[in-house]
This record gives sequence, structure tokens and C-alpha cells, in this order.
Amino acid sequence: MLDPWGTTVVEDYNRLYEEFGIQRFKPLLAEISNPSMYMRRGIIFGHRDFKRVLENIKRHEEFAVMSGIKPTGEFHLGTFMTAREIIYFQQQEATAFYCIADIEAYEDNKIPFEKSEKIAVGNVADLLALGFDPKRGYIYRQYKEQRVRDLAFLFGRSVTLATVKAIYGERNIGLYLSALVQAGDILMPQLEDFNGPKPTVVPVGIDQDAHLRLTRDLASKFRRKFNFIPPSSTYHKIMKGLDGSPKMAKRNPMSYFTLHEKLESIAKKISNAFTGGRPTVEEQRRLGGVPEICPIYEIEMYHFVEDDDAMVKVYNDCRSGKLLCGEHKAQTTEIVLNFVKDHQRKRRKFVDKAREILLVN
Amino acid sequence: MLDPWGTTVVEDYNRLYEEFGIQRFKPLLAEISNPSMYMRRGIIFGHRDFKRVLENIKRHEEFAVMSGIKPTGEFHLGTFMTAREIIYFQQQEATAFYCIADIEAYEDNKIPFEKSEKIAVGNVADLLALGFDPKRGYIYRQYKEQRVRDLAFLFGRSVTLATVKAIYGERNIGLYLSALVQAGDILMPQLEDFNGPKPTVVPVGIDQDAHLRLTRDLASKFRRKFNFIPPSSTYHKIMKGLDGSPKMAKRNPMSYFTLHEKLESIAKKISNAFTGGRPTVEEQRRLGGVPEICPIYEIEMYHFVEDDDAMVKVYNDCRSGKLLCGEHKAQTTEIVLNFVKDHQRKRRKFVDKAREILLVN
Repeated sequence: MLDPWGTTVVEDYNRLYEEFGIQRFKPLLAEISNPSMYMRRGIIFGHRDFKRVLENIKRHEEFAVMSGIKPTGEFHLGTFMTAREIIYFQQQEATAFYCIADIEAYEDNKIPFEKSEKIAVGNVADLLALGFDPKRGYIYRQYKEQRVRDLAFLFGRSVTLATVKAIYGERNIGLYLSALVQAGDILMPQLEDFNGPKPTVVPVGIDQDAHLRLTRDLASKFRRKFNFIPPSSTYHKIMKGLDGSPKMAKRNPMSYFTLHEKLESIAKKISNAFTGGRPTVEEQRRLGGVPEICPIYEIEMYHFVEDDDAMVKVYNDCRSGKLLCGEHKAQTTEIVLNFVKDHQRKRRKFVDKAREILLVN
Repeated sequence: MLDPWGTTVVEDYNRLYEEFGIQRFKPLLAEISNPSMYMRRGIIFGHRDFKRVLENIKRHEEFAVMSGIKPTGEFHLGTFMTAREIIYFQQQEATAFYCIADIEAYEDNKIPFEKSEKIAVGNVADLLALGFDPKRGYIYRQYKEQRVRDLAFLFGRSVTLATVKAIYGERNIGLYLSALVQAGDILMPQLEDFNGPKPTVVPVGIDQDAHLRLTRDLASKFRRKFNFIPPSSTYHKIMKGLDGSPKMAKRNPMSYFTLHEKLESIAKKISNAFTGGRPTVEEQRRLGGVPEICPIYEIEMYHFVEDDDAMVKVYNDCRSGKLLCGEHKAQTTEIVLNFVKDHQRKRRKFVDKAREILLVN
């Protein structure tokens, strides 16, 4: 089956639907008047209870979008995607919550709060440069947000050791604690302080679903006290590594780039990337490439080519053997570098604003 | 061996010295110029690193005393003892920290914060009525004390699941979390905000030693960051239940009384108490009673008869068969009720002050 949006076909998403009760996103698509690129292309492939949020979007009624970043380094394509998903929902009239998960960065990655604070300034500048409107959103650090920590303490009583062990394995207590904090992040938008309760959508990678299950469970345990509505979620696919590895990973620098690397370094990584090409030019002309397994194709399709028709053309040209990998890499490099240059320029203007926001919240 | 202070001889305290490294208190006694009743009578029988605190007492140098109460109900004889130990050290020039362990009351006893706040007002009024000087002390609620909670989050990373399971067994995450909070309580007096680091003594019942071990371990793990001095502790024996049960326990109302019960109820519990008496008056006259196993004797000796000579007389009169249980119970009832009446009268005057303190901190 030919499908220009069908990368990562190898993964067995059916298992997610059947075993974990994640719902398919596609049937909702027709009801969304202004779907994001991620939605149109099936990159957002699953959800929990998104209908509840969709109803409020349609009726122009209040809802929230909540997600965040673990401040361990510069924006990479994963945090970039989450940021753009939040901004998309903010543009659909959501009140947007962006959490700097510094407690998690500390408990899980040993990053001291003094250091994560500095990293967060850059992350927030990125978010603002991408179009987040701070006047209609709330950006905060977990460590400074008493409401989140209050919720974590409340939730503690209702979460057993068995539950956190099943999700996180044998870890230090701080790591379990940060799971409670994360549940606090997701439910904070529903507190009275923020005019809650209200439907909330949490756009995340599918690898984060366990947190959502835990939080939805807590929402129902504490429903009597707070009137929580179980939070909704959307799930995006996880990108492959540039080098053909199953996933971009920090310990493998050739698998990803950040938005703040030197341009030459980004260009080099793209140029060295794995592709869906054939061993020889002759074969590729004859058989065509395989965009479905190609990280170069994926980068454009996930992130940098907004126009669906242009993307379909790339797909067809690759499959027909017209577009060779060298040429495609050159094209992609140009698109990415232009974006990054432009973004870095914009971002510089937002650094002071970012610092100011983090000082207050 | 006859020893007027030798109650609860049955317990094998040697094991504590040998296996857990708790040090004997008695050898220090000669160095203490003004020992408390609990010290003189061996009710405080063990310690960790108390010498460090003792040196500062002698040199009139700064040290802190820290303990607290889980706000689950009115003052009983256990919380009464801890309060008086804190007040004793405050009188030896310690800066005194009194923690309202409302997070623990929530995680362990399911007491909502709104309720524990009310209970705490009474507890603090008791503390003030017993002589705690709020001008040279700091009374606070865990849930409101950000410094304590900050420390808990920091400590989380260094405490493994295995450690908390060994101390607390398989519990909910909140219970483990409250162990971290408790370590925060014990080390907060050593923060710069409180002119730390400084020696700190934590007077507790021997059943609390596991917390101290955990906290001393954390103090050394975070020494580089905070310059913590490992906290010292003193351990008091645990009182028997009035009804002869091994320990006073809430689920067994005949085993204890609070300082705010109706006087008739206290009188009735004393009158029904188990004693070290003989089956018949004749036998008791002939053989004498056994004060070592008698909760009535213990109540006076632990709490209500400050004068050592008077106490020795009771001991001898019981052993010789001169003092019969009925008479002793009547005597004890009078002493206790006089104390309680007087205390309740004083306490009423401190309720507003207590409320004010808890509102601020």
C-alpha cells in the first residue's frame, strides 16, 4: 500500500490499540476543521478521549493544552515537535501550559537546578520563537510551582509501589516522586486557580502513555475533591535516528541534531545519514527509493515541509527513481539550514523575555 | 538488682547497642551539668553522636534541637515527652524547631490537611503551655515549609527503593515521600537561612531510629553541597500501656490517655490500670509490689513526679509492701488530675497565639 505518510510502518501500532486502549486518531480527522500537519499526515496516530477536547474546540469553549520539556539540553526535533503541537492548540484557543520539568531533569538526569534553570532560558526562547503566545499561556518550572508539588504530595497516598515499579522499574525514590509531580503538571490546569476543571489535551510521544494512564487514574481517584475531568492525550510517532537507528538518542550524536548546533555540523549529519536508497544509481533509477524507511524523507515530512502537495511530489519522485539520495539530501540540507538560521535569528530576540518569564514563574 | 529507674528491663537494649551502633547515654551523664529528669532516670538510655551537642552546650555555642508531632489527635504521654525534651534543650540555649508533620499525617493516617491544621492549633497550644518559647524557636507545618520540601526533592535522587522498603516495607509512594520530608525536617536547621550548619539533636523514641539512620546517611551524601553535620539523637524508652499492653496505642483507648480527656475518664483509666501488685493484700504486704512492671509507677516516674527523692520513696514503699496499689492509684490520680487541670487552664490562654503562629509559618 502506497502512502506518503506511512513511515515507521514496521511498528505494530495495532497492539497499542488493542492492549492499551489507545484510540485511533484517523476517524476524528474529518471533524477537525483545521488539522495540524502532524494530524493530516498520521504522525499523530492515536489518542485518549480527544473527542472531549474536540467538542470544546468546535463550540469555542474553554480547554487547556499541557506539555513540557525536560531541561537537559537544547531543543532537538522531539521537543520541537511537542512545542509546535502546543502552539497549534493554543491557536485553536486553548489556554496553554508549558512545564519546565526541572524536577525530572534532576531526579532522572542528575542536572542540578542551577544548571537546568540556565538551560530552560534557552528552551523557552525557542518556544517563543516558534510562536508560543505567553499572554495566553503559562510557562513554569516544576520546582518553583507550589501547586504542582502540592498535588504530587496529595497523589502520593494513592499510588502504590507496585504501580510505579510497573511503570518505571526499580529506581530511586526521587524518580517515582517525579512521576507524581508529572501527574500534578497534567492536572494543574484544572485547579480553580486556572478556572478549572476543564478538558485538557496532552500532546506527547507514544512512549509517554504510561504517565497518562497513571494520571487519568489519579484524576478519577481525586474526582470528588477537585472535579477533575480525565485528561485527554494525543500520541505522535517517534522519529527514527538519522543514522538509521530506531530512535534519536542523546548518547548517539549522529542520530539527531539540535536547533542550535553549528550549521556545518547539521549539514554533515544529514549528508552522512542513512537513506532508503538502493546500492547503485542504476538500481535506484530502475526500482526507485524507499521513503518509508528513510530518515531524510521523515525529517522533511515530520518537520520541515508544510505543503502536503510538495511532500507528495517528493514521495513520488523518490519512489519512481527520479529523485536520488544525494540530490534529496542537498535539498533537505538547504531547507533545514534555512529554517535553523531563521529560527536562531528569531530566538535571540526572545532570550530576555524568556529570562523574565522564568524569573516570575 | 534494685533500681528505681529500671522499668522495661525486659527489653533487650543490648541488641540496639551492638547491632545498630546506638551509644549508651549513661556514661555521658556525669558531663551534663543540668540533666533532665529523663536523662537522670535512664528513660533516655541511648544516643548517636550526642557528645557533639554536649560540647556546644558546655561552651555555650550554637546548636539546634529538632523534633515534632504528627497532628493526628490531642497530646498524649508520648508527644508530651517529646515536647518536654525539646523544651529542656531550648532551656540549655538550643534554637528549637518543632515540626507539625502534616504530610506524614496525610500519607500515613489519611488526615486531610484542612483537618490536621485544626488539630495542630491544639498541639501547639499544648507545647506553649508546657513552656516552649516561640521567640527562640521555630514552629512550622511541613506542608507549608518550602525549604523542607525542597530538601525532600533533592534527597529523592539518593534514596533507593531498596532502602525505603527495608525501613517501611511495601507502602504507597507518599509514605516513602514523607520519609524524605522527615529527613528535610531534621536537616533544615542546618541551612544558611537558619545560620547553619550546626550540631542538631533530635530527641525521639527508640522506634524512630531508622529515620535517623536514613537522615545521617543523607547528611553525609549532601555534605559537599550543604556542609551538613550528621544530626545527633537521643532515644527514650517507649512507655507500656496502662492496661499492661506492651505500648500505648490509639486503637486501644484503655492503654493511654490524652491531656484533654475528661478528668473522670483519666481517673477511670488509672483506676482500671494493670499494676505490679500481688493477687491479695496479704501477699503484697508480705512480698511487696513489683514497680518494674507497673504502668502506674511508670507514669509517675516518667512524667509526673519531678522529685527524685519522692520517687525513690514510692519505689521503696511499693517494694516493701507499705504502699498498696489502691492507695498508689489514688495518689497518682490526684497528681495526674492536678497536672491536667492546671495544664488545660494554661493551654486555653495559648490557643490564639498558636493559631497566629500557624498562620504565619
